[in-house]
Amino acid sequence: MKLVYQGKTKDVFELENGNYLLKFKDDVTGTDGVFDPGANTVGLSIDGMGNGGLRLTKYFFELLHDNGVKTHYVNADTDNNTMEVLPATVFGNGLEIICRFKAVGSFMRRYGQYATEGQDLDAFVEVTLKDDDREDPPITKDALEMLNLLTADEYESLKSQTQKICKILKADLAKKDCELYDIKLEFGRNNGEVILIDEISGGNMRVYKDGEVVHPLDLVKIVLGE
Amino acid sequence: MKLVYQGKTKDVFELENGNYLLKFKDDVTGTDGVFDPGANTVGLSIDGMGNGGLRLTKYFFELLHDNGVKTHYVNADTDNNTMEVLPATVFGNGLEIICRFKAVGSFMRRYGQYATEGQDLDAFVEVTLKDDDREDPPITKDALEMLNLLTADEYESLKSQTQKICKILKADLAKKDCELYDIKLEFGRNNGEVILIDEISGGNMRVYKDGEVVHPLDLVKIVLGE
Repeated sequence: MKLVYQGKTKDVFELENGNYLLKFKDDVTGTDGVFDPGANTVGLSIDGMGNGGLRLTKYFFELLHDNGVKTHYVNADTDNNTMEVLPATVFGNGLEIICRFKAVGSFMRRYGQYATEGQDLDAFVEVTLKDDDREDPPITKDALEMLNLLTADEYESLKSQTQKICKILKADLAKKDCELYDIKLEFGRNNGEVILIDEISGGNMRVYKDGEVVHPLDLVKIVLGE
Repeated sequence: MKLVYQGKTKDVFELENGNYLLKFKDDVTGTDGVFDPGANTVGLSIDGMGNGGLRLTKYFFELLHDNGVKTHYVNADTDNNTMEVLPATVFGNGLEIICRFKAVGSFMRRYGQYATEGQDLDAFVEVTLKDDDREDPPITKDALEMLNLLTADEYESLKSQTQKICKILKADLAKKDCELYDIKLEFGRNNGEVILIDEISGGNMRVYKDGEVVHPLDLVKIVLGE
């Protein structure tokens, strides 16, 4: 098993069957020791974060599978904090697909002139480039096409899948009295098809319960009923 | 004649016939005393800038008219630095429509990961919000629609008009051995139609000649053959 990539929150190994193994770590993104799913730097390490993130990811990927959404998920080994996934190539050096149900965070920093903090958004999708040096700039469909990062058809697939996926997740969280504010997904190409990759956990979504933001580890307990 | 708006580079008066009068000033945008068409602040005042800007604007609007493009331009009084224009309402508090033929400036600051400084771009259009406090954030078609700033049809009209207009301007500048790198336009609604408004001068375009950037006042002389 060969280590092929060391990420901020996961390491990636190549398997002999052509699939990949993701090893979830306890590191999370944040700034100055405070957890922030939108941050570019590893801000802190939280015991149990890798295992919790994996168990939540397994739960959500299986939920999506049951709802007919194809993803890169194959199976998970929660004892070893690993998940087997299909091979996929990312667009350029990676895109982040953000889906928003509430106007908060960077959305307000950009569009605060025309939006009210916390106003409802209808699964609004935007794309940013993974580029730490340039602070993950937002990018339009036209620019993505022009820079040959993806085709117009791939963009539309990615956008409609994002809205479908996020509505499924939002509805499931609502059953646990949790409200999904926004979430960050990643897609890749597998056999010419655009599929959801990476993880789905508290580390890349903003969830509120009883008016308070839910910590990623608390989200594991709430969603998995522990 | 009533003053209705004082802008960074122009004042606006209401006329009795329902049209408006734009008074061109000698102030230009820039930072620390250096001219920069992309800057949000009045950086300096240049003698003759208002008159030069108006004469160039008159020239370009008349060129567009001759090419069948409807704009807000009615006529110009170059002795008094004023231009009469049709009434128009802007989208929200105003949008800037940027058309790029070369990858430079803010394009490179955002997409430098995937572009080479100075590479050719095929009349690439992007939109930013006029919002000094938020540094004129870029915005997507989806966000413009969602925030009710314009409709999908208006966006497509604005994009195709921008590309047509800028190709006309680029071809005309090329006849004077000048190369248009990028340009910033503004559109508004007039009787339910999207039309080009504001000015077209050295103050909102980046032009090169013999490998050197052309100063707005030099552009007046070159284009008008003075």
